[in-house]
Amino acid sequence: MSNVLRVGLAGLGTVGGGVASMLAANADVVAARAGRRIEVVAVAARDRARDRGLPLGEAAWFADAAAMAADAGIDVVVEAIGGSEGIARRVVEVALAAGKPVVTANKALLAVHGAALARAAEARGTPLAFEAAVAGGIPVIKVLREGLAGNRITSVAGILNGTCNHILTTMRNERRGFADVLEEAQDLGYAEADPSFDVDGIDAAHKLAILAAIAFGRPVAFEDVHVEGIRGISMLDIGFAEELGYRIKLLGIARREGRGISTRVHPCMLPAAAPLARVDGVFNAVVAVGDHVGRVMLEGRGAGAGPTASAVVADLIDIARGRAAPVWGAGSGDLSDAPSVPIREHVGPSYLRLLVVDQPGVIADVAAILRDEGVSLGSMLQRGRKPGEAVPVVLVTHDAPEAAIDAALARIDALGSVLEKPVRIRIEEGEA
Amino acid sequence: MSNVLRVGLAGLGTVGGGVASMLAANADVVAARAGRRIEVVAVAARDRARDRGLPLGEAAWFADAAAMAADAGIDVVVEAIGGSEGIARRVVEVALAAGKPVVTANKALLAVHGAALARAAEARGTPLAFEAAVAGGIPVIKVLREGLAGNRITSVAGILNGTCNHILTTMRNERRGFADVLEEAQDLGYAEADPSFDVDGIDAAHKLAILAAIAFGRPVAFEDVHVEGIRGISMLDIGFAEELGYRIKLLGIARREGRGISTRVHPCMLPAAAPLARVDGVFNAVVAVGDHVGRVMLEGRGAGAGPTASAVVADLIDIARGRAAPVWGAGSGDLSDAPSVPIREHVGPSYLRLLVVDQPGVIADVAAILRDEGVSLGSMLQRGRKPGEAVPVVLVTHDAPEAAIDAALARIDALGSVLEKPVRIRIEEGEA
Repeated sequence: MSNVLRVGLAGLGTVGGGVASMLAANADVVAARAGRRIEVVAVAARDRARDRGLPLGEAAWFADAAAMAADAGIDVVVEAIGGSEGIARRVVEVALAAGKPVVTANKALLAVHGAALARAAEARGTPLAFEAAVAGGIPVIKVLREGLAGNRITSVAGILNGTCNHILTTMRNERRGFADVLEEAQDLGYAEADPSFDVDGIDAAHKLAILAAIAFGRPVAFEDVHVEGIRGISMLDIGFAEELGYRIKLLGIARREGRGISTRVHPCMLPAAAPLARVDGVFNAVVAVGDHVGRVMLEGRGAGAGPTASAVVADLIDIARGRAAPVWGAGSGDLSDAPSVPIREHVGPSYLRLLVVDQPGVIADVAAILRDEGVSLGSMLQRGRKPGEAVPVVLVTHDAPEAAIDAALARIDALGSVLEKPVRIRIEEGEA
Repeated sequence: MSNVLRVGLAGLGTVGGGVASMLAANADVVAARAGRRIEVVAVAARDRARDRGLPLGEAAWFADAAAMAADAGIDVVVEAIGGSEGIARRVVEVALAAGKPVVTANKALLAVHGAALARAAEARGTPLAFEAAVAGGIPVIKVLREGLAGNRITSVAGILNGTCNHILTTMRNERRGFADVLEEAQDLGYAEADPSFDVDGIDAAHKLAILAAIAFGRPVAFEDVHVEGIRGISMLDIGFAEELGYRIKLLGIARREGRGISTRVHPCMLPAAAPLARVDGVFNAVVAVGDHVGRVMLEGRGAGAGPTASAVVADLIDIARGRAAPVWGAGSGDLSDAPSVPIREHVGPSYLRLLVVDQPGVIADVAAILRDEGVSLGSMLQRGRKPGEAVPVVLVTHDAPEAAIDAALARIDALGSVLEKPVRIRIEEGEA
C-alpha cells in the first residue's frame, strides 16, 4: 500500500456518487482522521460517457468492476452496485480472494451470502466492512460489534426501513390510505417503482439478519427471519391504534429466547411513549439491550447519499487506520451455534380487528372461540352500532402463543358473520 | 504480550468493581469478541483487607497503583481511581511512559490534563482510551471519532450529567423544589455528599470539553467552557417553561461558529418536542450533527457500575484486537487550531423571569430598558394580579447578543420595583 489509500469504486449511483462527493468535499477531515489521504483512483460503471457531475478527477475507468477489483493499483474496493447476485457479488468475491479490503452498503448481499463472504474474508485476514448496509448513517454495526462488545445482548429492535416508516407516518398524520401514500412516495423518489423490497419487509429483514448476527455473534441467517410487510395496514387500524394508545411501526426484532434467537419483521403496535414509537418519517432507529449497559438507542437518517456515504467513508477510515473486527464480531471458531427460534414459538399480546355484521351473538361466538383456543382477552372495542350492517370490532389479547392465535383466527374467519379476513397486529410492550 | 491480555486495575470502587465483575461474568463473550482472554491479574486499592465480594481470583495486590502500572506483568492499566490530580494522574502518566495502553473513566483527568496525556500517548504510540469518561455506557467517543469520522461536525449537544437530569425531571414530575429533590437524591446515592461537581455543571463541562475536542479534532480546552449549573432553577421557572411549551434541561453544547468553536454548559429551555427534551431521569443523550450524516442521536445510561464497565470493557476489547485511534481523532500534526469562541459572543433567544411589585409602569420600565439595549421581545406573560404585591413576570426575547442581555438585566435588576435578581435561561431551538 502506498501512503494514499487507493479506492476502486464500483457503482456510481446514489451510494457511489455520494462516496465520491464526500471524499472530495471532506478530503482534509478524512485525511486527518485516517492519517493518510483516501482517493478514488478507479471507478467502474456501466455508462462511461454519462456526465454525473462527480469530482472523479483522474480516476481510471473500468467497464468490468471485477477486473477493477483485481487491479494491482487498487488497495480497497467499495462495492456500491447493489443486489445479492451478479456483478455485485462477484466484485466482492474477487476482491476478498485477492486479499483486498471491501467496503459495501449491500444488505441483500450480506444477508444472503454473508456467511460465505465472512469465511472468505477471514481466510485472507482481510476486512469486509458494511456499516452502510444497516440504518444508513447510524453507526449501529460499530456500536454493536465494538462499542457494546463486552455485553451479552438480550435484544435488538429497530425501525430499519425509512420508506415504510415514511408511509406509516404520513398515513397517520394525513389520514390517508396506504395505496395513496405509496404512490406519492414513488413520485417523490422515496419509494421504488417496484416497492415490494421495502413494503413487504424484505429490506428490513436483510438488515435485521445482519444486526442479529452481530448482536448474538453467530453467522447470518436471513432465511430464518419471519417477514411480514405493511400492505395490510389500513387507516382503520391506525385509528384504533391511536385510540388504544399505540403507534403502528414496522419493526425488526431479534431476541435471545430460552433456547435460541428469534428474528422477526412485522408491523407492531407500540405504546405511544415507547422510544421507537416517536421515531417518525424517514428516520431509522435501533434499540439494543445489553446485560451490563442496559438500553441504548441510536437514531438518525437511514438512507440517502449523505448518510450512506458517511458510513462508507467511516469504514474506509477504519481500513486506512488498520482498525478491523471479525465480520460477525468474533472469529469463526468463536461464533455461537444458537439455533433460530421460529415464529410459531412466539408468545405475546395481539391486536385483532374484525369486520362483522352487527347482529346479536357475534361477539359471543368470537369470544367463545378465543376461550376455546386458550386466548384470554384484555379488552374489546366496538365503534358505532349499525344493526345488520358491517362494523369493525377490535380485540386486544393478553400474552398468547402464536399457534393459539392462528387457530382462533382461522375459526373466526370461518364464521358467517365475519366479513373480511381478520387483521392481526402483534403488540410489543418490551424494550423497543 | 502473552495471549491473555493482562489487566492491572487501579481502584475498586463502583467503576473498578464493575469492570472486575463484568470481565468475570462475561468472560466467554469478551474472549470471543477480543480474540483472547482478558483477565484482571493485579489490583491496586487502598484497603487490601476489605472484602468487596469481587471475583478477583488470584489477582496480585499492589498498595501503590503507580508501581502496578510499571509492573512487567501488566499489559494494560485500567485507571478507576478518579480525580484530575494525585495518584490517578500519576498512574496514567507512569503507564503511558512505559508504553502501556491505558483505559480510564476519568473525565476530570482527561479534561484538565488531556492535552499533555495525549502527547505522551502519541509519543509512545500507545492507546489512551476513555469511552467511559463521557455518557457512561453510550459509545459516544467511538461514534464521534470513528463512526462519523468523515463528517465535518457542526454541533454536538447533550445531556451529560445524570444527577442533574434526575433532579430536573423529579422537580418537574413531582412539583418539588431543588433543595428538597437534591437531598433525596443524596439519600438515594444518586448525588454526592458534596454535589457541586454535578449541580454546578463542572462534571458536564469536563465531558463537553472531551466531546468537543473529538468532534472538532482539536486538543481539549476545558478552561474555555462556559459553565452554569442548576442551583438557580426554581419550580416557578419549571412551571413557566411548561406553559410556554419548553422543558428545562442542563445541556452541554459545542458548536462550530463563524470563527471558532463555542462550548457551553448551562440550563436550557428546549421545545417539548425536541429529542433531548424527552430524555428523562438518569439517562444521558447526545445529538451530533454532521455535514453528510445529518442528525444522529444516542441515548442510554450515563452512569452506574454496569454501563461504565460496558464502556471500559469495550475499550479493553479494542486494545486486545489492536484497534486504536488518536486521542482527539487525528494525530497532533493534523489537529485543528480553531480558537474557542467565548460566551460573550453568543447570540440567541432568552427566557427572562422577574419578580416585580405589581404596580403601574413596571412593565413599561422593563420594556424600555430592553428596547434601549436592542433586545426585542417575542412574548410577555404575567401570572395573577396582586396590586402592590410581588408577582412573577416572564419575558421571552428574540435572538439577542449576550452583552445586550447582560446589560439589560443589570439595569432591570437596579429598578426599585424588581425584587429579586432576574432569572435568565437561554432558549435552544436548534438541533438539540
